Amino acid sequence: MTSESLSLSFNPAGIELDRRQGLSRQLYQALRVRVLDGRLASGTRLPASRDLAAALAISRNSVVRAYDQLYAEGFIEGRVGDGTYVAQLPQAMLPAKKLSTKISTGLSTGLSTSLSTNRLDLPVDLSSKVIHRGALQRVERNHLATPPSGPPRAFRVGVPAFDLFPFEVWAKLNAAFWRKPDLQQLCYGDPAGDQRLRGLIAAYLRSSRGMQCTAEQIVITSGAQQGISLCAQLLVEPDDGVAIENPGYRAAGHAFAVAGARLHGIAVDSEGIDCTELAELGDCRLAYVTPSHQYPTGVVMSLARRLELLAWAERTQGWIVEDDYDGEYRYSGAPLAPLAALDRQGRVLYVGTFGKVAFPALRLGYLVLPPALVDAFSQRRAVDVRHSEVSTQAVMAEFMAAGHFQRHIRRMRRAALSRRNTLLSGWPQGIPGIGSLPSVAAGLHLTVAVESAALEQALIEKAASVDVEINALSSYWLPDSQKPEDQRAGLVLGFAAVPEGDIIEALGRLDRIWHT
Amino acid sequence: MTSESLSLSFNPAGIELDRRQGLSRQLYQALRVRVLDGRLASGTRLPASRDLAAALAISRNSVVRAYDQLYAEGFIEGRVGDGTYVAQLPQAMLPAKKLSTKISTGLSTGLSTSLSTNRLDLPVDLSSKVIHRGALQRVERNHLATPPSGPPRAFRVGVPAFDLFPFEVWAKLNAAFWRKPDLQQLCYGDPAGDQRLRGLIAAYLRSSRGMQCTAEQIVITSGAQQGISLCAQLLVEPDDGVAIENPGYRAAGHAFAVAGARLHGIAVDSEGIDCTELAELGDCRLAYVTPSHQYPTGVVMSLARRLELLAWAERTQGWIVEDDYDGEYRYSGAPLAPLAALDRQGRVLYVGTFGKVAFPALRLGYLVLPPALVDAFSQRRAVDVRHSEVSTQAVMAEFMAAGHFQRHIRRMRRAALSRRNTLLSGWPQGIPGIGSLPSVAAGLHLTVAVESAALEQALIEKAASVDVEINALSSYWLPDSQKPEDQRAGLVLGFAAVPEGDIIEALGRLDRIWHT
Repeated sequence: MTSESLSLSFNPAGIELDRRQGLSRQLYQALRVRVLDGRLASGTRLPASRDLAAALAISRNSVVRAYDQLYAEGFIEGRVGDGTYVAQLPQAMLPAKKLSTKISTGLSTGLSTSLSTNRLDLPVDLSSKVIHRGALQRVERNHLATPPSGPPRAFRVGVPAFDLFPFEVWAKLNAAFWRKPDLQQLCYGDPAGDQRLRGLIAAYLRSSRGMQCTAEQIVITSGAQQGISLCAQLLVEPDDGVAIENPGYRAAGHAFAVAGARLHGIAVDSEGIDCTELAELGDCRLAYVTPSHQYPTGVVMSLARRLELLAWAERTQGWIVEDDYDGEYRYSGAPLAPLAALDRQGRVLYVGTFGKVAFPALRLGYLVLPPALVDAFSQRRAVDVRHSEVSTQAVMAEFMAAGHFQRHIRRMRRAALSRRNTLLSGWPQGIPGIGSLPSVAAGLHLTVAVESAALEQALIEKAASVDVEINALSSYWLPDSQKPEDQRAGLVLGFAAVPEGDIIEALGRLDRIWHT
Repeated sequence: MTSESLSLSFNPAGIELDRRQGLSRQLYQALRVRVLDGRLASGTRLPASRDLAAALAISRNSVVRAYDQLYAEGFIEGRVGDGTYVAQLPQAMLPAKKLSTKISTGLSTGLSTSLSTNRLDLPVDLSSKVIHRGALQRVERNHLATPPSGPPRAFRVGVPAFDLFPFEVWAKLNAAFWRKPDLQQLCYGDPAGDQRLRGLIAAYLRSSRGMQCTAEQIVITSGAQQGISLCAQLLVEPDDGVAIENPGYRAAGHAFAVAGARLHGIAVDSEGIDCTELAELGDCRLAYVTPSHQYPTGVVMSLARRLELLAWAERTQGWIVEDDYDGEYRYSGAPLAPLAALDRQGRVLYVGTFGKVAFPALRLGYLVLPPALVDAFSQRRAVDVRHSEVSTQAVMAEFMAAGHFQRHIRRMRRAALSRRNTLLSGWPQGIPGIGSLPSVAAGLHLTVAVESAALEQALIEKAASVDVEINALSSYWLPDSQKPEDQRAGLVLGFAAVPEGDIIEALGRLDRIWHT
């Protein structure tokens, strides 16, 4: 047999074992990789376990265990009264590797093998960039910026005063849930979410937003982003036009672009998104808007504009995704009715979140859907993820039912208002090129214009040098926006993330550094 | 003014208020809906608050609050020294409604309005089925069956012995996390997941599965289904061919179909998926397989077949999604190396889950990705959902680091083995047409053939009549499978879901009912 001559080539010398780790597993892996890369050819006779143990200076038991595993997995086979051989494996096993030396073993499988022993045991480097198509390519072109790291500091955007969250209450409710779980709740659940939570959310929206919704219209999501992404994946086909506010919430734009949409950035004026520009486009299937507090400019969409937008959706059978990301925060005047409360034709999908009332990493949000879309969204969610994690939903339901939620909203609104006032009253004066501060009737951030892109960058870099975080308004614009670069410049500041004392200190540092 | 003559038509008689609810809100809503549906035309003068309060027999304060809200939202406007009027709203507001009677108001907005008062305040019925296209349509055609409701019972498939989960420990770890949260952890996190958890999972897979993976290759998901769905959304373009095992895990097939794949069901023989059939198809971009314990047949994919499948992927630049859904459960012999451990060309995406070790509703799983795909998956996850809920990840990391996880796996394996043995030893004998039981070396369920589709249905219905849950093997086949219906019949039984005593009782009931 040819295999007998080949068996002479087995050389355990290349096998190096680390005595601090499991020896039999290391040996198993070393032998396996040699079979797979051709150094141990099919038909090669392996040394008796006693001999290999002696050669490697390990216990015979370790060798036997390694052989057993290789045997169980089919890498080696025993021949009665003859010993142990590398199994005959399909010839297709090694096609993609470049072998430095090839010899024909002449075995019936026609396996090619190599006697070279200097190849690496490690997989080849796979991290080099490959060229992707379709969905992979769209993701590469439309991905979110890395979120800022480190603990929250002034003036991080997108986080509420979550230092005030009643973690002690939350910890107790969590422990109570887990100590006596209902086993039924731990099986696969309703993809639309916890029924009790859905009912409580619907009641909350009816009383706080004037929405006439029922629990059946609610689909629980893992945060607002998942709500937006679900809308993108279900309502947008490749090459559909999607209208987004410009400047706007880029993460939403990315979700639509990843679904294959052609994005159209629509201007925002003092009444909100420009519906004339939207109507002139002609080919939009969907418009994504933030009417209660435009992100990031802070404009509240006027009633006239809301009705115009609804009329557009009715006329074109288009969809409106209404992101009410910070609707809980309104400091003066009554909040306007959401589009979803004005919608009579089932064209509005309302995106809500607990992230701006509790904290972002909770990843709990919801969609309020037109009845005709509920089944499809719920089914899609089942295929995507089955349902959201169960305890977060159950604990939030209890948190709401016990009145903690309403109390917390009031506390958060007061805190945000106080922090807003701290920012407004301590804002550095007399810096050339910075516009006047807006009045900030709502939300958790404010936007202030600056006169040039160069100034925007300089102010933000100076702020960063004294550990103050400010976002560039220019980063909220689509890259191909028509507007001149200098008119896109501005500063976006979140005022809720840290307590008043920290805000005052940060403003002091800003004042000094900006005046130098 | 024309509006003055119209103001005569305002009739509060149709407004009915429920005195148990907030009166001003009800009035606000009643007036708003009348503005929106044209019963209260633009320019209509509203009664003084005192008069309306008297007409409705409510407090003047309630009317004032309702008017204030309508004013804030722009529905009504005040004219100095003159009273309150319905605002002039864009003419586009009512385009989609059919008005029973139209009169021209002659106002400059040209609003059409109606004097009919018998229309409903409620939105029109939107729940009637509409015809969807694209993604919505694919979801309707490819959705998961509703999961069985009620507490787990014999012989529910897909759930482990989670009555043995150490809920007390889990409750404590949860409470500990929430009592002293790291605020930084509660901001937006790494879309790939908690760094500590990823490291612990990689170490676990290296020692338990022989995979040479690092933490950087791990992306945390909300359960295995999300892992599969992510693969579908990132690797499959509309009309790509995708190979799935037939019979197989239908929820995976749905995820690929929803992404636009053409599904090819490939036969499974005693060595696993038929790679010859796969190779002959020629147009598959991706193959989804369950090599460690084929779902639902229980076949373990042979090494030869594993290598053949890898060779297919290398040759065609195809992807393999390896779902190791119950790899922790192996009762005899050593587990075979996963495809991901044999893969040298970065073609295998490994799907893991905690759902079969802890419980399904935890929704915690992971992908082990070829290095070249990690960025794209992580970025896609950020766009889809930003990241998974933070506490579940942190608590699981602590659960693993403290040794609870390994102890629990051993406990779960022992329990599953004991429950398997209870099922095997108590299985009803002498029922005509049922094949012999398999040996069940792995997993949490077993499959037994029956001789006809009619018998399958009869056995399952009888079982259900005595509160015993059995799945039909026929439901795991693609609808258009070539195989004759009778050869697709069988029973699929999960043996881990309930304790031994419940299994014995259920078997007793089965024995009686099946012999009648």
